[in-house]
Amino acid sequence: MTQTPFRIVFAVYPGMTQLDFTGPHQFLSRVPGSETVVASRDGGDVPAEGLVFAGTSVLAEIEACDLICVPGGVNASEVALDAAFVGEVRRLALGARYVTSVCTGSLILGAAGLLTGKRAACHWAWRHLLPLYGAVADGGRVVRDGNVITGGGVTAGIDFALAVVAEIGGDELAQTLQLGLEYAPAPPFDAGRPETAPAAVLAAYRARMDPMMPQREAQTLKAAARLGIALA
Amino acid sequence: MTQTPFRIVFAVYPGMTQLDFTGPHQFLSRVPGSETVVASRDGGDVPAEGLVFAGTSVLAEIEACDLICVPGGVNASEVALDAAFVGEVRRLALGARYVTSVCTGSLILGAAGLLTGKRAACHWAWRHLLPLYGAVADGGRVVRDGNVITGGGVTAGIDFALAVVAEIGGDELAQTLQLGLEYAPAPPFDAGRPETAPAAVLAAYRARMDPMMPQREAQTLKAAARLGIALA
Repeated sequence: MTQTPFRIVFAVYPGMTQLDFTGPHQFLSRVPGSETVVASRDGGDVPAEGLVFAGTSVLAEIEACDLICVPGGVNASEVALDAAFVGEVRRLALGARYVTSVCTGSLILGAAGLLTGKRAACHWAWRHLLPLYGAVADGGRVVRDGNVITGGGVTAGIDFALAVVAEIGGDELAQTLQLGLEYAPAPPFDAGRPETAPAAVLAAYRARMDPMMPQREAQTLKAAARLGIALA
Repeated sequence: MTQTPFRIVFAVYPGMTQLDFTGPHQFLSRVPGSETVVASRDGGDVPAEGLVFAGTSVLAEIEACDLICVPGGVNASEVALDAAFVGEVRRLALGARYVTSVCTGSLILGAAGLLTGKRAACHWAWRHLLPLYGAVADGGRVVRDGNVITGGGVTAGIDFALAVVAEIGGDELAQTLQLGLEYAPAPPFDAGRPETAPAAVLAAYRARMDPMMPQREAQTLKAAARLGIALA
């Protein structure tokens, strides 16, 4: 660990998928010698999928951190266009030892110019957008490329968190947290990936998601274009 | 579903293990035709493991619900002695179609007199306390006995949620949520249960937990004694 305490910043935003954030937070906040900060662009209340997270810090007021984690959300491609938020993520990430995300949070890392040439995970239904940021889309549940560690969709954040804990605190600490949080998953169905979901389930899901994809692609192209200018 | 919308109440409290609550909430709040209410004894802010959940409703102001879910917490045996909280849980549960909990939340259901003669799950390290409430401790990750559905420790809440979604909305809905939340777990270690954790990890965990157990047992006996009077 680079400093004491090892500072972990979750960069959150209204509309995020709360489990992308709360899953890893449950594990990472239990790492001895670490300090977990939940921060947003404006600070204060952050509403997310029916919950409201109160008392978040202001990202711009955080000087530095050891690890930054950006959760995903159904509005991730829109948040990728929020220059203030993305700028703070970039600033903190450039000084961090680890740059991380869960789910579509990788699209925000992408918009921050942090994934150029890097392999990264993403929610399966959005993964094809990663190359627009110069990233290499990877279907892994947890993907590591250098100091960038990314998790796949939503619940992948728990597997991601264990991998991160093992990285920063060792395997035994990760196993101790796994035991304490009784992570011995036993899903009653095997429908968590498009490859294993029943065809009808996949078709229904796609029918609901596909109409939104053109807008998400347009937003991503716009964010990527800005990035081109910013990095030029 | 018994009413429209199908009302789901999470009965939360300061000090709960947030993932016990946020995991199931992520799935259940996406059930079409349902309404998810987060409520606490006093309403307002509920701090839990470094997070603060704002804007919770007041339990006493909720007339009825279809499903009540009580999360666990390291202070569950203390919360089991909070007569006002436990009383509201009991009142709502007696009118609900489903009575549920995650992790040590089952100890609160027990204190509310809802588990007498019932099989129930609990976090593995606390499971032996359930019989003090007249319940039958069950090592299952998700346990159903009549209208009582309980999940094991913390992350079991996600498997629990899928089982509950399947019950109230059908298998296809559960599978659709599983696909959307990409629940295809791949833990990097197999340390999530005492039976599979490395011996050193289990020993270290027990060494930290065991000193707290006498107090938890005393609290549970006290809550159980109250229950005996209340039910007499």
